[in-house]
Amino acid sequence: MRLHDFTGSGNGHKVRLLLSNQGRSFELVEHNILKGETHTPEFLTRNPGGKIPVLETGDGRYLPESNAILWYLAEETDFLPDDAWSRAEALRWMFFEQYSHEPFIAVARFWLHFVEMTPEQEVQLVEKQTRGYQALDVMEQHLTSAYWFAGGRYSIADIALYGYTHVAHEGGFDLADYPAVRAWLERVGAQPGHIMMEPH
Amino acid sequence: MRLHDFTGSGNGHKVRLLLSNQGRSFELVEHNILKGETHTPEFLTRNPGGKIPVLETGDGRYLPESNAILWYLAEETDFLPDDAWSRAEALRWMFFEQYSHEPFIAVARFWLHFVEMTPEQEVQLVEKQTRGYQALDVMEQHLTSAYWFAGGRYSIADIALYGYTHVAHEGGFDLADYPAVRAWLERVGAQPGHIMMEPH
Repeated sequence: MRLHDFTGSGNGHKVRLLLSNQGRSFELVEHNILKGETHTPEFLTRNPGGKIPVLETGDGRYLPESNAILWYLAEETDFLPDDAWSRAEALRWMFFEQYSHEPFIAVARFWLHFVEMTPEQEVQLVEKQTRGYQALDVMEQHLTSAYWFAGGRYSIADIALYGYTHVAHEGGFDLADYPAVRAWLERVGAQPGHIMMEPH
Repeated sequence: MRLHDFTGSGNGHKVRLLLSNQGRSFELVEHNILKGETHTPEFLTRNPGGKIPVLETGDGRYLPESNAILWYLAEETDFLPDDAWSRAEALRWMFFEQYSHEPFIAVARFWLHFVEMTPEQEVQLVEKQTRGYQALDVMEQHLTSAYWFAGGRYSIADIALYGYTHVAHEGGFDLADYPAVRAWLERVGAQPGHIMMEPH
């Protein structure tokens, strides 16, 4: 099993975290997204969307989209709830992550840490921050009455949201007013095989 | 079963389409998103994210996120592939839809059809169009060698992508150069119980 990835990516970190939690070995193939390495003709055969992470199976099939990869690796393991309602709730939070969390918290972090911002991006950063805090508000509210996001236990829904929440400070987000989110980050961090994002 | 929805929404249409394909009855509860009806205290108890669609089950539980609802309604039916790889591929396209398709094609349509655009949005519309066409390019490439998006048959992956693709012209998108997408739209339209977006 190979993971095509970029080590600074929170989307990639989700998959690395699950594999580490599961104690599974894999080969990491690094692609520098800052140098266009995910837009080469060869890479586009793996994912026409030109994005990491992409999982390559032993028999040469490719699966893009971090949260689809999490699902594939978690099916029929303890990392995915086994009743239909809890599975739907896990997906509900995973789609929330990709639509209402990542485009703001991850993009703010990317602009502040990986590139020189354009004047347009400087302006748009304000909205990214506002909407990122709205996502954190929704998480805080949920975690005020629940330890985990779905099925009453640690699952890929937590892993998906952990990816960029645990590095949200790099996007300029202050979690001081989010005690339930901070306590949840610690619970995730206490799971066997836990790994944080590597320094970059 | 109740669906909290807004009839102009492609995200809502996905769920209505699946329910119609399945021949299942439900009660539609309309919330006018243009009048803030999804941000009332009552609505926020159903979905703290303040978005439709939300599925309400017979026993009073609520499930937001259109693609999570599709999954919940499709599990153990013919609308979801039954092998693990094809299920992961279905999710791959559903996450692609929410991250790389909807934020451009649906938002362009919303700005052009439902609101008065601000000068900032007029500027951003150019990028929405560019990235919307990139999503259509990825779909066209896939459909050049496949009839359906996952598992070799019509599934919720097709329904998720149909939601906003079949009204993409309302976002200013011209499908003339996308023959494979147009043929796929017709195949989806030929499924039993098919419904199009209602005029609005």
